[in-house]
Amino acid sequence: MEAVMGAAGVVVDERTARMALTCVAEPAMASVTQAVTAYGGMSVWEAVMAGDGPVARRAARSDLCETFARAHDEGLRFVIPGDEEWPARLDDLAHSEPVNGMCGAPFGLWLKGGGHLAALMAHSVSMVGSRASTAYGESVAADMAVDLGEAGVCVVSGGAYGIDAAAHRGCLASRTPSVAVLAGGLDEPYPSANRRLFDRIGEAGVLVSEFPPGEHPTRVRFLGRNRLIAALTPGTVMVEAGVRSGARNTMTWASSLHRIAMAVPGPVTSAVSFTPHRLIREGEAVLVTGAADVRELLGPLGRHCPRPRSERRPTDDMTPDELAVYEAVPARRGLAAGEIALKAGVTVPVALGMLDHLADQELIVQTPRMEWTLAPRRRADASQDAA
Amino acid sequence: MEAVMGAAGVVVDERTARMALTCVAEPAMASVTQAVTAYGGMSVWEAVMAGDGPVARRAARSDLCETFARAHDEGLRFVIPGDEEWPARLDDLAHSEPVNGMCGAPFGLWLKGGGHLAALMAHSVSMVGSRASTAYGESVAADMAVDLGEAGVCVVSGGAYGIDAAAHRGCLASRTPSVAVLAGGLDEPYPSANRRLFDRIGEAGVLVSEFPPGEHPTRVRFLGRNRLIAALTPGTVMVEAGVRSGARNTMTWASSLHRIAMAVPGPVTSAVSFTPHRLIREGEAVLVTGAADVRELLGPLGRHCPRPRSERRPTDDMTPDELAVYEAVPARRGLAAGEIALKAGVTVPVALGMLDHLADQELIVQTPRMEWTLAPRRRADASQDAA
Repeated sequence: MEAVMGAAGVVVDERTARMALTCVAEPAMASVTQAVTAYGGMSVWEAVMAGDGPVARRAARSDLCETFARAHDEGLRFVIPGDEEWPARLDDLAHSEPVNGMCGAPFGLWLKGGGHLAALMAHSVSMVGSRASTAYGESVAADMAVDLGEAGVCVVSGGAYGIDAAAHRGCLASRTPSVAVLAGGLDEPYPSANRRLFDRIGEAGVLVSEFPPGEHPTRVRFLGRNRLIAALTPGTVMVEAGVRSGARNTMTWASSLHRIAMAVPGPVTSAVSFTPHRLIREGEAVLVTGAADVRELLGPLGRHCPRPRSERRPTDDMTPDELAVYEAVPARRGLAAGEIALKAGVTVPVALGMLDHLADQELIVQTPRMEWTLAPRRRADASQDAA
Repeated sequence: MEAVMGAAGVVVDERTARMALTCVAEPAMASVTQAVTAYGGMSVWEAVMAGDGPVARRAARSDLCETFARAHDEGLRFVIPGDEEWPARLDDLAHSEPVNGMCGAPFGLWLKGGGHLAALMAHSVSMVGSRASTAYGESVAADMAVDLGEAGVCVVSGGAYGIDAAAHRGCLASRTPSVAVLAGGLDEPYPSANRRLFDRIGEAGVLVSEFPPGEHPTRVRFLGRNRLIAALTPGTVMVEAGVRSGARNTMTWASSLHRIAMAVPGPVTSAVSFTPHRLIREGEAVLVTGAADVRELLGPLGRHCPRPRSERRPTDDMTPDELAVYEAVPARRGLAAGEIALKAGVTVPVALGMLDHLADQELIVQTPRMEWTLAPRRRADASQDAA
C-alpha cells in the first residue's frame, strides 16, 4: 500500500483513490459520488484533500494504510467500474432519480468470497423482507430461493435475520451461490449471529459492501445498501414487510431504477403482509406466488415499470447531508455540534444550520449542556429502526 | 291461480306469464330471455305455447297450477321488472355480454323472507368463494362480513358451504340482513344441511331464486345463479377459490357487468389462494384485505354508511355459546330465558349465567315482565341495520 500512497498520503492510482474515498466519504451521498462519476476518483480525491472540508478532516484522522492492510488480511478485493467483475447494472445508479435524497453509483465495491460477482448477476434476483418474519414468510422465501437457485438464478439479499437469511439459505440449499450486500465492513459482517451463513455465502458466492473494514452499519448506510440490492439485479421480490419496513425502501429503489418490483401475498391477518399487499394493491409491485412467476416476469417479455410512491416520513424530505446530521444525533445522550459535524461528514456551519432546522421540526432537542439529542418521541422510533 | 290461467292454460297477465316461463324455460338461456326483454312475458308465452318447441312440450308436461299453489303455501312471492322490490341492477343483464354462452335478465325472481330486496341492495356487496375453504378463508370472510354488516352493508352470497356460509353468518352476526341467491327452488333450499342458516337469512333478509318450487340445482343453473349474484350488487369479493372454482365464473360476470371485482389474498401455499392471486395478478380483481378496502372501493356506499366502524365490538370476545345466547335476545320485544336457551341451543342454567353476564356488560336489559331484550343502545343499532 505504501507503494500507491505518497509520503503525504497522495493517492497515485484510480483504484486506490476510490478505495480511499470509501474510507472517508459516505458513498451514497450525491455530492461526492456525482463528482466521482463525472471526473473520476483521482481528481476528486486530490480536490477534496487539497481543501479542509469534512472529507479531508476525516481523512486526516484515518489511517488508510492500516485499513487497506486489514482488507488485505481479510482476503477482500476491491472492484471499480471497468473491472471485469464490476456489475454493469450498478452504472444505472449514476443517473438515477434520488430516493430519500440518496443517489449515485458506489465508488467501488469491497468483495469477499469465491464467486465472480458480475457473472453471478447475469441470472439474479433480489429478495427482501422483514427481519420479524413469520414461519410462513420464511418458508415461502426459502422455497422460492431453492426453486430460483435450481433454475440457476443467484439470489441477492441483505444478510439480515428473517426473510434475508431464509432467501440466502434457500439459494445455498440449491447449490447455487448467493450474494449478500451488507451495510458495514466485511471484516465483521452484520449481524454477527449470521456468521456461519456469511461463511457459507462466501464459499462460492460473494459478500459485498461499499464500506471498508472497520466500518459499522448505520441507518443511512442501510438505506444506501438497499439501493445496491435493487440495482444489482433485474428484479426484487418482497416476501413479508410490516408498515415501516426497510424492505419498502428497497422496493422504491427497484421501481426508481426500472427494475421489476414483485411482492408475495400472505394472510391478511398477518401484520407483515401489510406492505406486500399495499404495493400490489397500488400497482407498485406485481403479485408473485413462486419462482415460476418470478422467472416469467424476468423473461424478455416481463417489462414492468411501476411508479414509485411512498408514505411520508420526516426523513423523506431530508437531503443526504441533513439525513447524515440527523443520524449523527445520538438517541440516549447529548453530542456537541462539532462532533456531530465530524460524524456526519459536513462542515460545522452546515451542521449548525441543519441542527437548528431539525430542532424546528421537533425531531431533536438541545440538552442543558447545549449538546444535541433526539427528541423523546423520536427516540422510540430510532431504537425500532436501529438495525 | 285458476283465475289467471284459462281452461287451456292460457296465461292472462304479465306476472303469471313470467312465473310460468320460470317453470318451463331455463332463464339464463339467451333465446327466450332476449325475447322476453324485447316483447314481454305475455307475448313470448303465447308465442311459445302456440308452437310445439321444447318449451311448449315441457309446459304440456307441467302442472303450473300445482307449482303456483306450492309457492303460495311456501310463502313465496314473485317479483318482476317494474315492481317496487325489483332490484334495478338486474336490468343490466338484459344488455350484457354473454358469459359461458349465458346472458339475459331473469323473467322474474322467486323470493322468500322478511327483507325488502331492492332496499337491501341499496347498500350491498357480494362475497363468493370456495366450498372447500380453509379456516383462514372462513375467518376472513366472516370478519369482513361482520364489518360490512356493521356498516349497514348487506352481504349477498350463494348459501353454499364454506365461504358462502361464513359470509352469510358474519353478516347476520352483525344484525344486518343477508341475501342468499340459490340455484333451485326455495321450497328446498340447497344444500339442505344449511337449512337453519337459510331460516335465519329469511327472517330479515331474502332468499332469491329464478326457479319455482320443486326445481333442483344443476350445473348450468349454478352458472346462471352466479350472474344474479354478480348483477345484484355493485361489487363482488372473492375470498378463496381453487383452480376450478365456480366463484371464478361469478367474478367473470362481475367484470362483464362493470361491477367492482375484488379478491382477498392468502397464503401462497394454499390451493384455494390460487384463483384470487391469479385474478389480482392479471388485473382482473383489486386486492382487498378487509371491509375498509371494500367500502373504499365501493365509494358512495361507504360515504352513505350509517355507522362508523368501531375498533372493538362487544361480540369479539364472546364464546360461540355466548354469541348464540346474545343473538337469541330479541331487539323489539322481550323473551323469557327458557325460550332464549331453546333458541340458542344451550341449557337453561347456562343461558341464565350468560344473560347475567350480558346484562353486566349493558348489552341486554330485563323487561318489567322479567323477559330479556336488547339494551336501547343496541336496539338503535339493530334497527339501523334493518333499514
